Formats: sequence, C-alpha cells, structure tokens
Amino acid sequence: MILTVTLNAALDLTYEVDALVPHRAHRVSTVVEKAGGKGLNVARVLTRFGEKAVATGLLGGRNGSRVAELLDVPNMFETIAGETRRTVVVVDGDATGFWEPGPVVSAEEWASFVDRYTALLKVARVAVLSGSLPAGLPVDAYAVLVTAARTAGVRVILDTSGPALDAALRAGPDLVKPNAEELAEVAPDADLSTVDGVLAAAAALRAHGVGTVLASRGPEGLIALTPDGAFRAAPPHPVSGNPTGAGDACVAAIARAWAHRTPWPGALRDAVAASAAAVAAPQAGDLDVRTFLSLRHGVAVTEI
Amino acid sequence: MILTVTLNAALDLTYEVDALVPHRAHRVSTVVEKAGGKGLNVARVLTRFGEKAVATGLLGGRNGSRVAELLDVPNMFETIAGETRRTVVVVDGDATGFWEPGPVVSAEEWASFVDRYTALLKVARVAVLSGSLPAGLPVDAYAVLVTAARTAGVRVILDTSGPALDAALRAGPDLVKPNAEELAEVAPDADLSTVDGVLAAAAALRAHGVGTVLASRGPEGLIALTPDGAFRAAPPHPVSGNPTGAGDACVAAIARAWAHRTPWPGALRDAVAASAAAVAAPQAGDLDVRTFLSLRHGVAVTEI
Repeated sequence: MILTVTLNAALDLTYEVDALVPHRAHRVSTVVEKAGGKGLNVARVLTRFGEKAVATGLLGGRNGSRVAELLDVPNMFETIAGETRRTVVVVDGDATGFWEPGPVVSAEEWASFVDRYTALLKVARVAVLSGSLPAGLPVDAYAVLVTAARTAGVRVILDTSGPALDAALRAGPDLVKPNAEELAEVAPDADLSTVDGVLAAAAALRAHGVGTVLASRGPEGLIALTPDGAFRAAPPHPVSGNPTGAGDACVAAIARAWAHRTPWPGALRDAVAASAAAVAAPQAGDLDVRTFLSLRHGVAVTEI
Repeated sequence: MILTVTLNAALDLTYEVDALVPHRAHRVSTVVEKAGGKGLNVARVLTRFGEKAVATGLLGGRNGSRVAELLDVPNMFETIAGETRRTVVVVDGDATGFWEPGPVVSAEEWASFVDRYTALLKVARVAVLSGSLPAGLPVDAYAVLVTAARTAGVRVILDTSGPALDAALRAGPDLVKPNAEELAEVAPDADLSTVDGVLAAAAALRAHGVGTVLASRGPEGLIALTPDGAFRAAPPHPVSGNPTGAGDACVAAIARAWAHRTPWPGALRDAVAASAAAVAAPQAGDLDVRTFLSLRHGVAVTEI
C-alpha cells in the first residue's frame, strides 16, 4: 500500500464566469465542487494505475465533511475541530485562484494524527507527504512525519515548499521535489537554466541529508540527482494541456516505481510519462493510463 | 410583526487579499462568513429599531445550515434539499463579487413554503419580499406571495428586479423599489436625470396595479409616487460610506412606518435617514440608530 498525506486538504470550488473584471459583480454560471489536495491527486493517479493507495490527513467542519463525501480514493482521515479550507478558482478561459489559509490544528489533534499515520506506516511500502501545512502546526511537522517513516523503514517522498520543506530536509526524506525558488535559494550562484546549474543546486540540497532531488524542467522533463547517479529524462515530444497536477502524477509514478522496486531509469521514465499524461488529461489532477503507456516508450533517460 | 422573505439566501464569504490580479493565485489573509440576503438585512435593521421582525425563506444543504447558524434575527426558514448558494466577495480595498446561481427548488418545496408563509401572514402587519429567485421557481413566484399577502390584508413591499419584478406587478404589491434599468424599461422616452422623468416612469409602473413606486436617487434621496401624491425626500447632507444595504434599510424603514401607520411624509423621512445611516455604518447591511435619529431631523420632504 502507498500512503499519501494531505494535511491541508481543501474543498475546491471552480466558478465559471464570462470574464473576470476586478471590482465588478459576476454571475457564476456553473459551480463545481471537488475534493482538493495534492496528496489526494497522488492517490487518485495511483488508483488509476491499479495501485493500492490510502489517503490520510486532516479534515474538519462542514467543508471537511463535504470533502469526505467527494473523496474518490480509499482514505482514513483524522477529524479536527477547525474548518477545512476552501479554494476558489474563477475560470474565464484562464484561471484566477483564491486560497483560504486553512484551519488551526491543536497540539492534541496533531498528536492524534501522528498516531494514526504511524499505525498506517506499518502496512505502507511508500509514504508521500504533499502540500502546505495548515495554521497551528509546527513548521517541522513534516520532519516528524519523515522521521516516523524512516523509523518504520518506509521510503518517504516530500513534495512541499518554503519553510515546511526547509525544516524537514535534515530528517532525511528519500526524495524531495523542490521548485525553482527553492533551488535558487540553496544555490544562489547557480544558473538554473543549465543542467549543470540544476545539478549544483540539487547537490546542495542533497548535502542536507536528502536521498534524491528531483527537479522538474517543465515540458523538458526532469533532472534527478539520486544516490545511484544523476539522470536526465525527457518526454518524446512536448505535450500541451493543463500543467496542474502534473507534479502530483510525477510523484505518484515514483512512489509506484519504488513500491515495485523499479530501478532509476525506469522510475524516471514512468515519472516523465505520468507528468505528460496528466498535462494531456482534460481534467486537472487526473490521468489517462493509455496516454501514459503510449508516451512511456518514447521517454529518453540518460545518465549524466 | 414584520415578515421578511429571502428566497435566495446566501452564505456570504468575504476574502481579503492584497491586490486582485486576474489569472494569478491569491492567498486569502482573512475569511469572514455571514448570513446573506436582502430580506435578512431588512430584518436586522428592523431589529435595530426594536421592531419585531421574523425572517423566512428557503435554506438547504451544508451552506444552508451554516447560514442558519449565523442568523442573528428571529427566523422560520423552510428547509430544502438543494444547496443554498455562496457569494464570494474579494476585497482588496475595492470589492469584486462572485454570485453562485442558487439551488433548484422543487414544486413540492415551493408549495410547502407558500403554506408556511401564508400561516406567518396571519400574524404579520407588513410583508417584505426581497431579492432574486433561485432556479426552479416559477418567474411569477413573487406574484403568488403578493396575492397571498393582499388576500390576508397584509401590506406587501416587493424589492426585486428583472423578470421576477415584471411578473409580480399585476398582482398589485403595495410598494416596489425599481432600479434605474427598470424605470428606463417602462418609460424609454423619460429623462431619468430629471424629477419629471422619474415621475413619468413611476406613473407607468403604477399603471400596472402597484400602490407606491419608490425611486432611489442615490445620495440625493428618494422620489415616491404614492396613492396620496408624489413626494421628494432628501438627506440633510451627503453621507459617505458603503452603499451596500442602504436599499434594505430604506425598505425596512417604510415597513416599520406602515406597521405604525405613519403617514407618507414621516415614512419617507425615516426611509431617507435609514438609507443614509446604513451608508455611514462601518458594517455593510447594518445601521446605527443614533446616526439615524440625528439625520432624521434634517431630512426635507416636499410634496411635488
């Protein structure tokens, strides 16, 4: 089983309007409600691959109950007193997003979640920790979860950013997926438009105790600095579509590869094909397995 | 008792952001949830005046329960299966609004509401019908409610717009408060920037069977074409602030005057002072009674 963790899940509302004009009133033509959260996307992609995944995390209040109702993946969430946040995305062709800050989580609720997570780790092969932290959680919350996974002998992927990522690096996650800002922060002198620059920044991050650093180059694919060497993986051709959720599909593919003990070149081939298939999918956060399979053959992985 | 009707109540969400930039993501710094709906504002203003008011209407789903929790006025709402709409207002100094369309109401739910409303009319002196109609209600829904009020001998104020207003005119509401668009529609040749033009349009509306037509001239006050003659009422001085809710305060003042059998000049003095006090209130939809009383002395009402 692959365990995905979403500490700051959301009730995602998508509003369609004709055209967003600041400081005007807009009639929303259609409202779509979805269970939102990067860990939920990871679990959904895993389910598409026929993989056994369980989503856990924190849910609370009316929005939390609604998210639980909308969940389309096996899940065991901890209930909290605070209200799960909403995200509102206004679509007028392009998307404008509004992210609520999320609930305050008490120390007792956090301790109770850590117990639940630790119990789930006993039956997990890989743990994936995704997204932002809600208010009230210590900044090193992910460090606690990474340490628990390592203690349980479960490989752990951490896909977050900012202080939540910084504070968890020394706990030694098996893989992190920093964005361009984080790479620039650890290696301010590196030219991130070059492969060498990205490798220098990735090496600086690995020096904190991280196993693998996976750097996305958008449509150009991935660069991975792993304990077994550095790799570059590129899709057969550019794929157009919605990049939302491509990172979650990438992480899901790596988690699946690890669960099946697939070595690096194959894991990266899967990751690039899954990202591209997610971009091509009409629904953000979803993925078509046939597209994945047809793209996978063409992914070029080279050791660098 | 004054009965206020809100058929399309809302869970009002106010999001504060630094600056709204279309096609970007925004972190919301604070979220405020309120029970929204013009009839609720009317009931709130009446309660501020120490007047007995009961709010009724339709509420459903999780949003409806949240509205019920947030309600700060006596109320007897009908529960429906559909989900009460949300409104999202993004504030970055100025306000940008997004209105969800509202629930679909079944014929059975509507019949059940009409029964409840008819029962409440037996103990009401005035009924106030405010705001838009949710989907699934017949366009003449307000005509049904106006007719029921007249049958019960209860004076009825209708504050709506568009087809919902047009379809209810012939049922003979005792007062309507058309906006500039509606006045322009019934009297396309009238110059609405002049008092005579407004009176011509009001006369055209009255000819449909309406008792009184109340036309707002914004900061310049009101023009009223009543069965007892035409009046003009102006505040002592311009008041700056938030005009949201000023119309509801105006309607509340008229309903209160009618409940106390106050003749027209006094009723219009109250209406103008209440509107101005609502504009001056720091909270939209609220009103300070002391400001109302201090403004009231200075309102000039002239028969025209």
